[in-house]
Amino acid sequence: MAGSSFGTLFKLSTFGESHGPAIGGVIDGVPANIPLSIEDIQNELDRRKPGQSAIVTQRKESDTVQILSGIFEGKTTGTPIGFVIHNEDQKSKDYSHIKDAYRPSHADFTYDKKYGNRDYRGGGRSSARETASRVVAGAIAKQILENIGIDIVAYVDQVGSIKLGNEVDYNEIDNNPVRCPNGDVASEMEAFIKSVKKEGDTIGGSIKCEINHLPPGLGEPVFDKLHAELGKAMLSINAVKGFEYGSGFDAIAMRGSEHNDLFNPDGSTKTNNSGGIQGGISNGMPVTMRIAFKPVATIIPEQDSINKDGEMVKVAGKGRHDPCVVPRAVPIVEAMAAITILDFYLRNKAVSL
Amino acid sequence: MAGSSFGTLFKLSTFGESHGPAIGGVIDGVPANIPLSIEDIQNELDRRKPGQSAIVTQRKESDTVQILSGIFEGKTTGTPIGFVIHNEDQKSKDYSHIKDAYRPSHADFTYDKKYGNRDYRGGGRSSARETASRVVAGAIAKQILENIGIDIVAYVDQVGSIKLGNEVDYNEIDNNPVRCPNGDVASEMEAFIKSVKKEGDTIGGSIKCEINHLPPGLGEPVFDKLHAELGKAMLSINAVKGFEYGSGFDAIAMRGSEHNDLFNPDGSTKTNNSGGIQGGISNGMPVTMRIAFKPVATIIPEQDSINKDGEMVKVAGKGRHDPCVVPRAVPIVEAMAAITILDFYLRNKAVSL
Amino acid sequence: MAGSSFGTLFKLSTFGESHGPAIGGVIDGVPANIPLSIEDIQNELDRRKPGQSAIVTQRKESDTVQILSGIFEGKTTGTPIGFVIHNEDQKSKDYSHIKDAYRPSHADFTYDKKYGNRDYRGGGRSSARETASRVVAGAIAKQILENIGIDIVAYVDQVGSIKLGNEVDYNEIDNNPVRCPNGDVASEMEAFIKSVKKEGDTIGGSIKCEINHLPPGLGEPVFDKLHAELGKAMLSINAVKGFEYGSGFDAIAMRGSEHNDLFNPDGSTKTNNSGGIQGGISNGMPVTMRIAFKPVATIIPEQDSINKDGEMVKVAGKGRHDPCVVPRAVPIVEAMAAITILDFYLRNKAVSL
Amino acid sequence: MAGSSFGTLFKLSTFGESHGPAIGGVIDGVPANIPLSIEDIQNELDRRKPGQSAIVTQRKESDTVQILSGIFEGKTTGTPIGFVIHNEDQKSKDYSHIKDAYRPSHADFTYDKKYGNRDYRGGGRSSARETASRVVAGAIAKQILENIGIDIVAYVDQVGSIKLGNEVDYNEIDNNPVRCPNGDVASEMEAFIKSVKKEGDTIGGSIKCEINHLPPGLGEPVFDKLHAELGKAMLSINAVKGFEYGSGFDAIAMRGSEHNDLFNPDGSTKTNNSGGIQGGISNGMPVTMRIAFKPVATIIPEQDSINKDGEMVKVAGKGRHDPCVVPRAVPIVEAMAAITILDFYLRNKAVSL
Repeated sequence: MAGSSFGTLFKLSTFGESHGPAIGGVIDGVPANIPLSIEDIQNELDRRKPGQSAIVTQRKESDTVQILSGIFEGKTTGTPIGFVIHNEDQKSKDYSHIKDAYRPSHADFTYDKKYGNRDYRGGGRSSARETASRVVAGAIAKQILENIGIDIVAYVDQVGSIKLGNEVDYNEIDNNPVRCPNGDVASEMEAFIKSVKKEGDTIGGSIKCEINHLPPGLGEPVFDKLHAELGKAMLSINAVKGFEYGSGFDAIAMRGSEHNDLFNPDGSTKTNNSGGIQGGISNGMPVTMRIAFKPVATIIPEQDSINKDGEMVKVAGKGRHDPCVVPRAVPIVEAMAAITILDFYLRNKAVSL
Repeated sequence: MAGSSFGTLFKLSTFGESHGPAIGGVIDGVPANIPLSIEDIQNELDRRKPGQSAIVTQRKESDTVQILSGIFEGKTTGTPIGFVIHNEDQKSKDYSHIKDAYRPSHADFTYDKKYGNRDYRGGGRSSARETASRVVAGAIAKQILENIGIDIVAYVDQVGSIKLGNEVDYNEIDNNPVRCPNGDVASEMEAFIKSVKKEGDTIGGSIKCEINHLPPGLGEPVFDKLHAELGKAMLSINAVKGFEYGSGFDAIAMRGSEHNDLFNPDGSTKTNNSGGIQGGISNGMPVTMRIAFKPVATIIPEQDSINKDGEMVKVAGKGRHDPCVVPRAVPIVEAMAAITILDFYLRNKAVSL
Repeated sequence: MAGSSFGTLFKLSTFGESHGPAIGGVIDGVPANIPLSIEDIQNELDRRKPGQSAIVTQRKESDTVQILSGIFEGKTTGTPIGFVIHNEDQKSKDYSHIKDAYRPSHADFTYDKKYGNRDYRGGGRSSARETASRVVAGAIAKQILENIGIDIVAYVDQVGSIKLGNEVDYNEIDNNPVRCPNGDVASEMEAFIKSVKKEGDTIGGSIKCEINHLPPGLGEPVFDKLHAELGKAMLSINAVKGFEYGSGFDAIAMRGSEHNDLFNPDGSTKTNNSGGIQGGISNGMPVTMRIAFKPVATIIPEQDSINKDGEMVKVAGKGRHDPCVVPRAVPIVEAMAAITILDFYLRNKAVSL
Repeated sequence: MAGSSFGTLFKLSTFGESHGPAIGGVIDGVPANIPLSIEDIQNELDRRKPGQSAIVTQRKESDTVQILSGIFEGKTTGTPIGFVIHNEDQKSKDYSHIKDAYRPSHADFTYDKKYGNRDYRGGGRSSARETASRVVAGAIAKQILENIGIDIVAYVDQVGSIKLGNEVDYNEIDNNPVRCPNGDVASEMEAFIKSVKKEGDTIGGSIKCEINHLPPGLGEPVFDKLHAELGKAMLSINAVKGFEYGSGFDAIAMRGSEHNDLFNPDGSTKTNNSGGIQGGISNGMPVTMRIAFKPVATIIPEQDSINKDGEMVKVAGKGRHDPCVVPRAVPIVEAMAAITILDFYLRNKAVSL
């Protein structure tokens, strides 16, 4: 209940703080006899890791995953996969000056209020470093889903006010540091992120995610609707402020006569305002969603803030933060989508005998 | 796992279809010794019930709740509250003509694909009628939260392209059939809904919800962030297409220097882009969220569709549907917010000894 | 979390007190398209109901189940089955004299300590009346298991010191009011129970349960071992004091060389000390278990006790209680076994793709 | 759902096989700000570890725990405690001869049937080695419970037919390798175990466990009764065949008039047949239970068995196994009791506001 587990039949439990010896997790409910490539898991981690380009944080972490159980002779055994990622960039330094300061729009204040203590050496448990464990589980889920024929792709579709248009080439996504599927727009976004970084500031962005070749029938009625769990999955990622699927917020101004997706004889639909989900259950069309990320709270300029005793203090960033979170968030979004979808796939097997 | 339960310590499990004898549920984990007013529960149901105004469905349902357990001598006992709401408007009629037809953008197709069967007498389990059970649980949660001093308010802030501006008077909300906190805007929305209805069409809308006087510390780190569960709660409501909190989708185009909420000496913040939540945990500021609803799929004009065998058929609405879902969805949003918040309030009691 | 739910994929949530308007429950995760006989459900309830013979309580309850959802045209739809059983024997009488008295070895004291209140009109939520809801869910699970070919049988094997020997005829079980599979032993037990009843006293007993034709592979390693969940299921029944499976407590004095079950070439075993379970997982042999029940706490002779204020009071039974609980507990044991097994059957479907 | 987690608010998830690189786990829901002694955790592990005396397995494992998160400056932070124990005694050897053989009364056959594969290098996930992770979580729970004043003690009360009588001295428990609280009986048991070992055979045993100073009110009505969860906890330990609490199986032959526990004016009871639990809820008296363990399945003499293809093969133990499991199981029983009790303690905090 303490909130560090996700999923029901395919379930990830994570542990670890940014400045402890290691982060990691346990993945329970992995189907048996699936060949898994550790290299592919590491590749996904590399897409998330710090220092991969000039527009992300320059913290030094190799983020090397070590699998401790659940895989034997290259295949899953059906028993839990335990794994760790050692923290490497945990310098012992003097934290006394910031120990009691609450950084604006960080989780320092809320953790302290909740637990009566705080790991002041960094974000502690609230650090986005925790998402590396999700990427490990997601990479495993992705490999399993690929076996079934389901594929998941995410990409940056907006940075600040710069929006991706209709020209989209999925092959471009990992060809640029922004992970935008259009080289020209990517260049524009990259230049903008660099200029924001130069000012010591940060900028928001958004990510689109598509799930293709999903069989109809995934998702449960009522509370555990497919999009409700996907929404929770995405909203649980650090810095996310909003989630929509299919027509999303645009549906507010639409009429039923234009929003309804008419059927083709084969059961597919002519339009996809439903975003692949009707009544909380997949209909076989692509599941489409969009996730909004706020600008990172750490900025270079000095800000007024308070400490534990309510006294005014000054806080300032040190420069090793992301100016824009979305390029590194792409593999995290894919990971959470994969974990969620595999869980529903397994749940759906219990619907009929 | 089958998705008909919500919550962990305060948990609602619902049952029931639109055309069966009754809907209802079990609420487990209700704290003991709380005086409950059945009248207040019924009042919330009346805010959701059909036929309450000219701009909602004219189905005839009194939606009278009957409490079967868990309350003794006017107070909660701590044991589960079981309840039923009998379905009254279930005429026995001939469904043979629509039995195999899939209505566009309804859940007919997906339920059939998932379960290999479908209750063709109406939406069955996918009918928004199920949400009446949520309103019962939510009304109970609201009464308990009021005892603690937490209050929840929701209202319509957009219908089609008509938006609520800055002039907001909460006292107006239940003074108009739209549930918009501005009489003039409400009149405009009402007229618009009527004109849409006249055309046999439907229109989308959105609802804002605020939770006030929430103590800091609610919400769990990582997966069960406060806004992630609120997001799931809202996305699980029929017709919802999107969820945002605090700055929401506007955060995409914002910079950290403008988005950060600076502290006042008392720990409150000068702005509230965080929407009352930082790192997934409440900070004591109002929690603010916005929920997007699509236009109802049932429309009067005949639409092309398919049947079970993939043959083209014509389907048409009969007129007893909501032209716009948001007026009746206001109490449902409040209910889901109340259930979610009470659950986190109870979970937070286990954090320290 | 409040403890009124059982199962993971096939999940029962119950509500109701002995003296409220009704008891009932929600069964979620029922596989779709299974024909269900309401008559067979009622038959199981009739095996549990009061007044069925001279050796059980003479309370008057018809225990008629009413199904409210989840069954359409005689088959399960895959959506939750909601049901109620109305309480009929709830006379309005004056409880003031016993309102504050704690009956020895009942749950009066502990409920009051836990909740700060108590439904003094009877056992309230602690009444074994709640188990009628389990029998409904169990009867449904049994019908589904029968479709798969799994069958469950329970019977009384001891009352006081009278033990069933090796002569067992399953056809005898429902031929006598004790539910003992040997007519002669049954008569002896019946006579003994009557003599105990005459004295106003009560007596303990035990029940054996066998699950046959279970496929190998059910049960999960580590915490959710098949026998661990069966143990929890049985220990959750009112008045149960102990659980053993296979060799059980006899294993304490056995050597490995005599306890080990050697294989036949077909994978079956020559002996079954394992009770059909190895490493927490079914091996295809019959699952065998034995459950110990204490004597009912309500006795006719006056007993010393205390009230809420710690003052000494006298309490005495009124005569409408079971002199021995095991005859009516047989269908409850079968019900809990069926619910548990069906849940594991469904869980096992998620093990491989 | 895959069965590797235990607990609701205080929750342990474990991973690891006997012959992989490491075992370990995640403990979520640890209350914040509790000082924890790593040394005390290691002490409990040392009570379980191989090679501690002549009557246990001589496998060489230091069983050193490494804490990876959740503790900062000597206190719990409220975030998950991740930990690992590296496997040291995993020689690379040739397993080809036993690769396909099923050892009698082991889990080889059932794992293979369930998963379609098996880690043939040892017990894999079914090895009792997994219980070391439980001892870590249990040691943490014990320290937290000691802060509240609750203490838990377990000891061996029977080996084969040798029973502990009424002379019990808790101080003796860790003074002898059997962990029996009577030096003379312990010597007799020790000699007997040695003689059984000499024959290459194994012997069963039983453990008693007492929980003292438990406040009244722990445990949930209906399914999650205190003794039902304790029963599941104990039955989930390798080699356990039975569980009883209070009067246990003796209650079968008792009358209500002798079984009922009469109250003292302070709410305590004159006898404790209830074993500290009434209606599934603690009453403040000591919780007492007894757990039956079968003889270890690995024996030295050659046994007939089968392989994957149903061919008859011979299998024989190699000598590095426990001749009797109960001495090393004492800390495991205490660990599972502590985890269960702390979970209910936390759950009980959500009962009232």
